[in-house]
Amino acid sequence: MNTTKTVQSALISVFSKEGLEPIVKQLDALGVTIYSTGGTETFIRDLGISVVPVENVTSYPSILGGRVKTLHPKVFGGILNRQDNPSDVAELAQYEIPQIDLVIVDLYPFEKTVASGASEQDIIEKIDIGGISLIRAAAKNFRDVLCVASMEDYAEVLEVLQSNDGATSLDQRKRFAAKAFNVSSHYDTAIFNYFNQTEQLPVHKVSEQKGQELRYGENPHQKGYFYGDLEAMFDKLHGKELSYNNLLDVDAAVNLMSEFKNDAPTFAILKHNNACGIATRATIKEAYLDALACDPTSAFGGILIANNTIDKETAEEINNLFCEVVIAPIFEEDAIEILKEKKNRIILVQNDVQLPESTIRTCLNGVLVQDKDSKTDVIEDLTYMTNNNPSESELEDLLFAAKICKHTKSNTIVLAKNKQLCASGTGQTSRVDALRQAIEKATSFEFDLQGAVMASDAFFPFPDCVEIADNAGITSVIQPGGSIKDQLSIDYCNEHNISMVFTGTRHFKH
Amino acid sequence: MNTTKTVQSALISVFSKEGLEPIVKQLDALGVTIYSTGGTETFIRDLGISVVPVENVTSYPSILGGRVKTLHPKVFGGILNRQDNPSDVAELAQYEIPQIDLVIVDLYPFEKTVASGASEQDIIEKIDIGGISLIRAAAKNFRDVLCVASMEDYAEVLEVLQSNDGATSLDQRKRFAAKAFNVSSHYDTAIFNYFNQTEQLPVHKVSEQKGQELRYGENPHQKGYFYGDLEAMFDKLHGKELSYNNLLDVDAAVNLMSEFKNDAPTFAILKHNNACGIATRATIKEAYLDALACDPTSAFGGILIANNTIDKETAEEINNLFCEVVIAPIFEEDAIEILKEKKNRIILVQNDVQLPESTIRTCLNGVLVQDKDSKTDVIEDLTYMTNNNPSESELEDLLFAAKICKHTKSNTIVLAKNKQLCASGTGQTSRVDALRQAIEKATSFEFDLQGAVMASDAFFPFPDCVEIADNAGITSVIQPGGSIKDQLSIDYCNEHNISMVFTGTRHFKH
Repeated sequence: MNTTKTVQSALISVFSKEGLEPIVKQLDALGVTIYSTGGTETFIRDLGISVVPVENVTSYPSILGGRVKTLHPKVFGGILNRQDNPSDVAELAQYEIPQIDLVIVDLYPFEKTVASGASEQDIIEKIDIGGISLIRAAAKNFRDVLCVASMEDYAEVLEVLQSNDGATSLDQRKRFAAKAFNVSSHYDTAIFNYFNQTEQLPVHKVSEQKGQELRYGENPHQKGYFYGDLEAMFDKLHGKELSYNNLLDVDAAVNLMSEFKNDAPTFAILKHNNACGIATRATIKEAYLDALACDPTSAFGGILIANNTIDKETAEEINNLFCEVVIAPIFEEDAIEILKEKKNRIILVQNDVQLPESTIRTCLNGVLVQDKDSKTDVIEDLTYMTNNNPSESELEDLLFAAKICKHTKSNTIVLAKNKQLCASGTGQTSRVDALRQAIEKATSFEFDLQGAVMASDAFFPFPDCVEIADNAGITSVIQPGGSIKDQLSIDYCNEHNISMVFTGTRHFKH
Repeated sequence: MNTTKTVQSALISVFSKEGLEPIVKQLDALGVTIYSTGGTETFIRDLGISVVPVENVTSYPSILGGRVKTLHPKVFGGILNRQDNPSDVAELAQYEIPQIDLVIVDLYPFEKTVASGASEQDIIEKIDIGGISLIRAAAKNFRDVLCVASMEDYAEVLEVLQSNDGATSLDQRKRFAAKAFNVSSHYDTAIFNYFNQTEQLPVHKVSEQKGQELRYGENPHQKGYFYGDLEAMFDKLHGKELSYNNLLDVDAAVNLMSEFKNDAPTFAILKHNNACGIATRATIKEAYLDALACDPTSAFGGILIANNTIDKETAEEINNLFCEVVIAPIFEEDAIEILKEKKNRIILVQNDVQLPESTIRTCLNGVLVQDKDSKTDVIEDLTYMTNNNPSESELEDLLFAAKICKHTKSNTIVLAKNKQLCASGTGQTSRVDALRQAIEKATSFEFDLQGAVMASDAFFPFPDCVEIADNAGITSVIQPGGSIKDQLSIDYCNEHNISMVFTGTRHFKH
């Protein structure tokens, strides 16, 4: 069976006329009969190309201010008939229905209209009915019809029409059909999401249009993809493609650093989605050096992020470290030149882009969706639980540690001193283990924990943590509170001159 | 402005007639004019209720074997006209178009047809064109029209029609419009996904229909939702609602235990998505007791999962522990009674349900999608790298440890002996830290690591890990291999009579 079809008649109905001219001229050159309506019809005629009004086919006018133009059996019969079905072909002749083998539609711009802040009435008027019906009918009948559902496909269809005198293969038509159902499902998902702002039906829809295949997923034997707009988030100045694991780390880094946006120069180093070093200092170079000092071993191969301009001096220091990615809002020109010396190192200028308000992750046979944890613990949230209050510098360290804690995998304990991370215990099944790990790690890098502070992502079920912290030299503690045995921890602190504040907010992160 | 509308004429076009009868009878009782076509028309007439064929309105027959029935300007004009627009109303009179203020559609069952394994031709024929066009037109014009887009909404619409003599409010019609665009976007997403199996366009779509709001998200200040089919996965015998964090843990538990599906009785205890205890034994009770022995502290409040029947004896032991969730494929009746004694404890019978092949998670302004890590390291994958080969029991322990390693957060090191987890280091920024943590933890629970094995989720960049492991008594090692310095680790092992095997497969999990 010959599945090649040659375009002989086209129905064109587009909102935007942009980019249409070369296609119409190509169709005219191929001797294709063009049917059209309304503004598109005028546009084609003004090009000096002959066009048949759809009304001539249907003997029916456009009604209801253009709400009903093409919804007619002669149009849909022309699109939906099966050329290999004798009864269909006979009916076409009987009812004088012209066969249509190319449909070109550009829909009313629903999403753009919503984004422009238009009124509900204007938005509703931009719900395209006829265009979607044409697209879906043409795509369904891809065995006989070529369907172009968006102006974004004009270039591809022009190439197809030029390369083979208007002939198309079944594979080509099926590919355009897939694109058509991508357009229609995306369009109605956008409409649904608009309606559901007020209705809140318990369904969950995603239709991400911008995607890229990654080299692989978390591991080389897994395929991986990112769907989103990296170009909006970052200007990439240098380096190889971001990997799946790079993206996870960059996400963790950007979220962590968002807590320090308005602070003095702050620098963080992340590995496996957790901070292994972070410090706030007078200059970004000092911040980098003290972030590195937290754990120079883990920093190897890490992700670096700054809340402030990376200058030449800082770049020279960074150059001594093997690191995968460096992120900052601004890089000095000199700094870029230095950082570019390592071929594979990825340099990202972070733009000020709003991140999604909720997060999605696969769970069992479905997905978990939740609001992002957008609560930052600030001084006004604190309840002072002990006889001793934290000193001013301890208070600063407590809030500094709490920010890191929020962005570290649970269970976590964070130890900090002088706006520098000393060490954290991360991803532990027991809170005591997290604390012990943090103390051991801080000690191994020769931190003096005398006067350091401790932050916990969740309450202490027993007073063992404050006791262990006390023995290590910790003098102030920040935690959510809320255990039925809180008083035991408070009592211990009072007996040992430790200050403790409650935030009232747990920050589990898994 | 009065936005209440009373239904006077209805267009009904449904694939399944199930559940339609009471609605049609109610419409008849309200004196509503019913328009219909094809099988629906016959169904209504057979109920003894008068019905106007759509062909009488359009003066046009159903053509192309039913592919074109309702796609006519008189039908769509009847649906899309704005009653508050004088020009629209005048056109209705001029063209003798009957106003339609209720549309009821049940679409061709596209998804069911795909799921049934039908031929491409049968599937394509089940792409509903007219029904979607009717739904979308009616939903767009929700100011004047009530749209019922699925038989799942029959009950709700019947109540609406009964409660107020056929009158509907704007809010009600808008709610049904939202439901309609849910149906249309879901339908076209399914069609797109069908086409995209072969086309592989780089877009990502999700349309989850079954959802529930959770008490909260990871933390009480975050809203949380699960979209999926928990009832298909589990029969819940007892206990409170699963929380967001429960679901994350249950997901981790189910995935971990899937590795041991065909093994001897195996029991695992998880906290914060990581196993804190797991053992394979002759009976499920022994497996439970030895899983608990790994880390009785962390087990408090944990998630328990068995690969085999939980009997009375095991249930009695479990009852001594405070735990949130118990999962098993089968529970003996006696065991259920015992486990139910704790009011809040969740008891789940796990059904044999296929989990998704890929996973999704939010990242930056988009989502990361990847194939699930479905590679289990088996004996055929191993390359023996050292002079000494592992003994038979070491080999069993190596593969046991590798399975746990794959399901523990990176970086991880897992220590095991006699098919029991001794300890793991989890979620570490440094591999050496992960190992040290595991050794310290195993020692704190008085494990004798002499003769134990070590598994690592990724290669060792330096020989420090094998050296530390050797000093702790470890005699055999399993790891992916692939470091440029692999030989240093191999040399160390050979010098110290340790055996080491490479799997060639990294198992990062973040």
